Amino acid sequence: MDSFRSVIMPAPGAPLEVISTAFPKLEPGAMLLEVHLAEVCGTDVHLHHGRLSGVPYPLVPGHVCVGAIADLNGEVKDIYGHTFGVGDLVTFLDVHETCGNCWHCLVGKNSTRCPSRKVYGITYGQQDGPLGGWAEYVYLKPGVQAIRLPRELSADTFIGGGCGAPTAYHAVERSGLRMNDTVVVQGTGPVGLSAIAFARIRGAGQIIAIGAPQDRCFLALAMGADQALNFEEVPESQRLDIIRSITNGRGADVVIEATGSPAAIVEGMNLTRDAGTYLVVGQYTDNGETSMNPHLHLNRKHLNLLGCWGSDYSHFSGAIQTMARYQEKIPWRELAKWRYSLDRAAQALDDIQERRVPKAVLNVIHI
Amino acid sequence: MDSFRSVIMPAPGAPLEVISTAFPKLEPGAMLLEVHLAEVCGTDVHLHHGRLSGVPYPLVPGHVCVGAIADLNGEVKDIYGHTFGVGDLVTFLDVHETCGNCWHCLVGKNSTRCPSRKVYGITYGQQDGPLGGWAEYVYLKPGVQAIRLPRELSADTFIGGGCGAPTAYHAVERSGLRMNDTVVVQGTGPVGLSAIAFARIRGAGQIIAIGAPQDRCFLALAMGADQALNFEEVPESQRLDIIRSITNGRGADVVIEATGSPAAIVEGMNLTRDAGTYLVVGQYTDNGETSMNPHLHLNRKHLNLLGCWGSDYSHFSGAIQTMARYQEKIPWRELAKWRYSLDRAAQALDDIQERRVPKAVLNVIHI
Amino acid sequence: MDSFRSVIMPAPGAPLEVISTAFPKLEPGAMLLEVHLAEVCGTDVHLHHGRLSGVPYPLVPGHVCVGAIADLNGEVKDIYGHTFGVGDLVTFLDVHETCGNCWHCLVGKNSTRCPSRKVYGITYGQQDGPLGGWAEYVYLKPGVQAIRLPRELSADTFIGGGCGAPTAYHAVERSGLRMNDTVVVQGTGPVGLSAIAFARIRGAGQIIAIGAPQDRCFLALAMGADQALNFEEVPESQRLDIIRSITNGRGADVVIEATGSPAAIVEGMNLTRDAGTYLVVGQYTDNGETSMNPHLHLNRKHLNLLGCWGSDYSHFSGAIQTMARYQEKIPWRELAKWRYSLDRAAQALDDIQERRVPKAVLNVIHI
Amino acid sequence: MDSFRSVIMPAPGAPLEVISTAFPKLEPGAMLLEVHLAEVCGTDVHLHHGRLSGVPYPLVPGHVCVGAIADLNGEVKDIYGHTFGVGDLVTFLDVHETCGNCWHCLVGKNSTRCPSRKVYGITYGQQDGPLGGWAEYVYLKPGVQAIRLPRELSADTFIGGGCGAPTAYHAVERSGLRMNDTVVVQGTGPVGLSAIAFARIRGAGQIIAIGAPQDRCFLALAMGADQALNFEEVPESQRLDIIRSITNGRGADVVIEATGSPAAIVEGMNLTRDAGTYLVVGQYTDNGETSMNPHLHLNRKHLNLLGCWGSDYSHFSGAIQTMARYQEKIPWRELAKWRYSLDRAAQALDDIQERRVPKAVLNVIHI
Repeated sequence: MDSFRSVIMPAPGAPLEVISTAFPKLEPGAMLLEVHLAEVCGTDVHLHHGRLSGVPYPLVPGHVCVGAIADLNGEVKDIYGHTFGVGDLVTFLDVHETCGNCWHCLVGKNSTRCPSRKVYGITYGQQDGPLGGWAEYVYLKPGVQAIRLPRELSADTFIGGGCGAPTAYHAVERSGLRMNDTVVVQGTGPVGLSAIAFARIRGAGQIIAIGAPQDRCFLALAMGADQALNFEEVPESQRLDIIRSITNGRGADVVIEATGSPAAIVEGMNLTRDAGTYLVVGQYTDNGETSMNPHLHLNRKHLNLLGCWGSDYSHFSGAIQTMARYQEKIPWRELAKWRYSLDRAAQALDDIQERRVPKAVLNVIHI
Repeated sequence: MDSFRSVIMPAPGAPLEVISTAFPKLEPGAMLLEVHLAEVCGTDVHLHHGRLSGVPYPLVPGHVCVGAIADLNGEVKDIYGHTFGVGDLVTFLDVHETCGNCWHCLVGKNSTRCPSRKVYGITYGQQDGPLGGWAEYVYLKPGVQAIRLPRELSADTFIGGGCGAPTAYHAVERSGLRMNDTVVVQGTGPVGLSAIAFARIRGAGQIIAIGAPQDRCFLALAMGADQALNFEEVPESQRLDIIRSITNGRGADVVIEATGSPAAIVEGMNLTRDAGTYLVVGQYTDNGETSMNPHLHLNRKHLNLLGCWGSDYSHFSGAIQTMARYQEKIPWRELAKWRYSLDRAAQALDDIQERRVPKAVLNVIHI
Repeated sequence: MDSFRSVIMPAPGAPLEVISTAFPKLEPGAMLLEVHLAEVCGTDVHLHHGRLSGVPYPLVPGHVCVGAIADLNGEVKDIYGHTFGVGDLVTFLDVHETCGNCWHCLVGKNSTRCPSRKVYGITYGQQDGPLGGWAEYVYLKPGVQAIRLPRELSADTFIGGGCGAPTAYHAVERSGLRMNDTVVVQGTGPVGLSAIAFARIRGAGQIIAIGAPQDRCFLALAMGADQALNFEEVPESQRLDIIRSITNGRGADVVIEATGSPAAIVEGMNLTRDAGTYLVVGQYTDNGETSMNPHLHLNRKHLNLLGCWGSDYSHFSGAIQTMARYQEKIPWRELAKWRYSLDRAAQALDDIQERRVPKAVLNVIHI
Repeated sequence: MDSFRSVIMPAPGAPLEVISTAFPKLEPGAMLLEVHLAEVCGTDVHLHHGRLSGVPYPLVPGHVCVGAIADLNGEVKDIYGHTFGVGDLVTFLDVHETCGNCWHCLVGKNSTRCPSRKVYGITYGQQDGPLGGWAEYVYLKPGVQAIRLPRELSADTFIGGGCGAPTAYHAVERSGLRMNDTVVVQGTGPVGLSAIAFARIRGAGQIIAIGAPQDRCFLALAMGADQALNFEEVPESQRLDIIRSITNGRGADVVIEATGSPAAIVEGMNLTRDAGTYLVVGQYTDNGETSMNPHLHLNRKHLNLLGCWGSDYSHFSGAIQTMARYQEKIPWRELAKWRYSLDRAAQALDDIQERRVPKAVLNVIHI
């Protein structure tokens, strides 16, 4: 065998294809990962719709995946200095080439806005090498930050968290959530569901999810929400009444937006108490504008409104360690149960787009 | 003499009147303040337009004033335990009756959102007593937090800062401004001008003011701005270009909004760098909605957007001490040079409304 | 019945006495609490040894207790505006008369250092009224902050947390503990045990307790520790090795001291990683000095070393709400199982002093 | 000319020598700096006494210097993407090889504790190349972070700040100093003097320096202190009285230690107010232990005690920009007036050691 199969997205809107890819020669410090499970998520739908900027089509999608090291060139170590070996079950931070040498990296200390940053399966194209997870193998360039899965963390649970978990981990940390805070999570997709889990783990008081359809509301409860309001059934004014009624009229201490819909913003501001925190993490693509009242929603409310972009190594490793510790209590693996072969990647993408499933997983290598 | 003169605002839109008020009997712990200088500011215009809620007309306006203690009942002390005496030159925190016993006071620790809070000259009406500064005397109820002016701080400088100074002090503190930060201040009214001063005092790098008309731009420079962009002459796209050009394309680290105009919000977001802070303190009345793009302006920008409401004792005393220390370097007193007698309060209000002057001062007692 | 029984501590070192106390007349806003359970803790031992300053002997000890409202004068409300009624099961914040009007309250915003602050059962003497919990009734002065126990929180669980719970809650909040942080808790008394519980609730990673004797180590595991090192068996160097071995040599992210022993300080510094946080909350009385190396322990370590004093309403109510939510998972009630009648208060005190029990509870009213 | 002169420190205690060094061949991305001014500071004394660990003697000392680019290989850019050219007046961050890939860099986000970190003139030895500033030329390895001096910043002012400026900048930032805070700076060496300056720039209220001898006390006043207490004349108890008398008995809000003497620690704790911040930045070498009382000094005081180690690019560039803005107001250049030729480096070191001068500057190239 001197080639392997990959899914190619040739151009925005063009049908996916399964192609044969030659095995890459490994540079010193590089590793070859045999992919077991790869994620299909909402970002991949945006990718297929051509809604992300800076994407060098054609490309192999798949920013988050997990598998076994098939080969490596020289000694490659994790951040603790432990050497990787063939057969290790690992994942890796999709974000690569954060430069460590620009204003954002050195002075602003917000590396997720580093302009050199590249992302596997999104901003690397086919001509850059086999750098996407929807494939039998993915090439880990030298410097890619790989992490061995902790022994107690299954690949299923990990991919159930997927890219939503570190994003949500970042969001919950950045929100400054304190014990007993009443929390609203808007959205019950992968980011929202993990945000519920991490808010619960971090000691939130009441957690109220707002989402749809009903099966995702049930998932929200399973992930740790006390209540899940189906927005197709409970109108906005009633949602506000409910949040106020459980907070003596104040509103939630922390609201986390994970919807992707601009219309959610004003509701989120209304649901947040005076001097509370509203964290916006779901607006990953440009879905247009929304209107708000800066007197009522910002100034008089003394609001903390925080945008939250991307995640870095600390969020990725933090999410992994947390999922490892709580995998028996929080059913991330339930999010990984919709499986597809590489050949059915188009179907997976379609199911995500049509919201038939909250998350799809490519079951690349059957082990 | 058993009565004194006060300016009454009978109702929204109704002409101001000068009336005669009987001297109040002092409760234990109360003081009577002979007013020297009282401020007329934009809030008083809103008051006259009936745009603030919870105002018990008729009332004596004037939330910030300074004068001498004319009488007091019993021993009254400042927060350091120093006893006040007749003749002391004092001012007082207009906010009163913060309860110290509600959720916002005790748990949220954001007392400016305490629902019991009353404000001299705004939420006290005529029937509550002589509780507004546009008068020869004002009654300081027991518990009102009075502050002796520091010896080195003139009443002129103090009233030049007026209510804008503690508001701006709060805003600059809450913004988390760090040394060398590039700062944009939107608005060159009293709050914006003091924000420039405090940003300068706190060690900002470049400070760029955006305001109008030209004389306020000059004032902005005098208060510490490095550049003042007249928005009547420099269009928005050019303002953005200027800010970007002095920040290697990034945008300002901190932007402080002090305009009152919803239209300023999107510009402010655009002027702020990724992961920077945009603090909104100028939207004190409801001037309607504005539109923004949550993907571009919040999420991808990783923005910290902070509303800022009111001020408490710490901001009031902090502003006073800072003005005392810097009164030779920063010309707050220039903001106090437009003087009016009590009889000309209507003219003062009109001049503020028509933006003929940035601030008007009632020169109540000529000393 | 026109009198009730109270335990008096006449003077440092003098034997406790049970006396008869006349029922007080209730001022407007006051309440009378029928005590069900009252705590005996290490502070009471210090009180009996005369090691606390500002104690007006003779006094009725007992700063934390829980019981039913027996009487009240007029309408008394909690901070949410809900009216108390006879029969309500309540507790109250032992700290009273925080002034809300001094520098610490208004400017420093650290009210636990307010000099006017009084504490039930500690700084109120017998002549001030029946203001201690080791009695059949305690007088709640107007303004005392009472809290109804949440329906799902039993009095047993509450008193098991006792005064250690809000102290530990404050400590864990102040430590800034983040998800996945490795935490060491020094000390397995009531504060240490609750600190373990709150650290677990807040999402800590590994928690290692250091304590003795062995039964408290078992309690530490029950409260949420992953490991409990008995310091009578595991020597200091080995403790350091263990912490380092589970943190890739770095040391713990957060160490919380709850021992009362100055000798614990240097060990705590050594156990904390570079740029980690060491929070000292157990040094409530003066047990002398200790030696440390400011180069190694502070400067080069880039340490955050935080002292933590007392607790305020937010910590008290936060602890109560958290205990209510987690009472099925965390066995606070196990700490309340050593019961004594009022007549056996001296025995309770002795058992605490001799460390025969981690906590003693006066079972005042058998219900 | 194919060689240049360097000062060598052969071993701890051995006399310095001036040697001839061959010009290095430049790797791609490397630059050669013609040294104009190089600093001799207290760390160099420690280096000569063999008190720092990890020093590969023999070495060329000199961690901070400034000069002109004499040569460079290929295109070398600063963090803004601007290309360096021959003749540019630059300095560079002495800290190099911070790995960007270890736990401290990626998760703890405290890169000054990165174990891979190397420091020019301290942890690079002679065999590593010409990597110390006490020489006519210094080799800037690829990846060294060089900064062009801002046009308005003279080399004199820069070297007057020297390594003390970024250290002090870090300390003042980390202290969280707020406007109007009363600040005590212990120590009037280069770090203390710059800490005074940055505290003043950041808007401190009263600043009190404690130092000696008298000429450094005068320098402290020139740098921005309101008072400078000569500790050879004003005894400790009186110093405490003075600080308390200007703070209504509370103590200073922020105390910054920059002495190097363990004995200063307890005084610093005593000088800090309850719930204030004590920042320890002066204990750069191990000068032994000191004793403190954890009840009085930490716990009851609710102290924030922060160690502060090293500085990173943000502190270095922040200090440079601030010195550029304030060079007319704050006399850093006065600290640069004690000049020595390379041949007199031993004399410079001796003058520093004997505290005859606060700072010594090697005037390498006379321009």
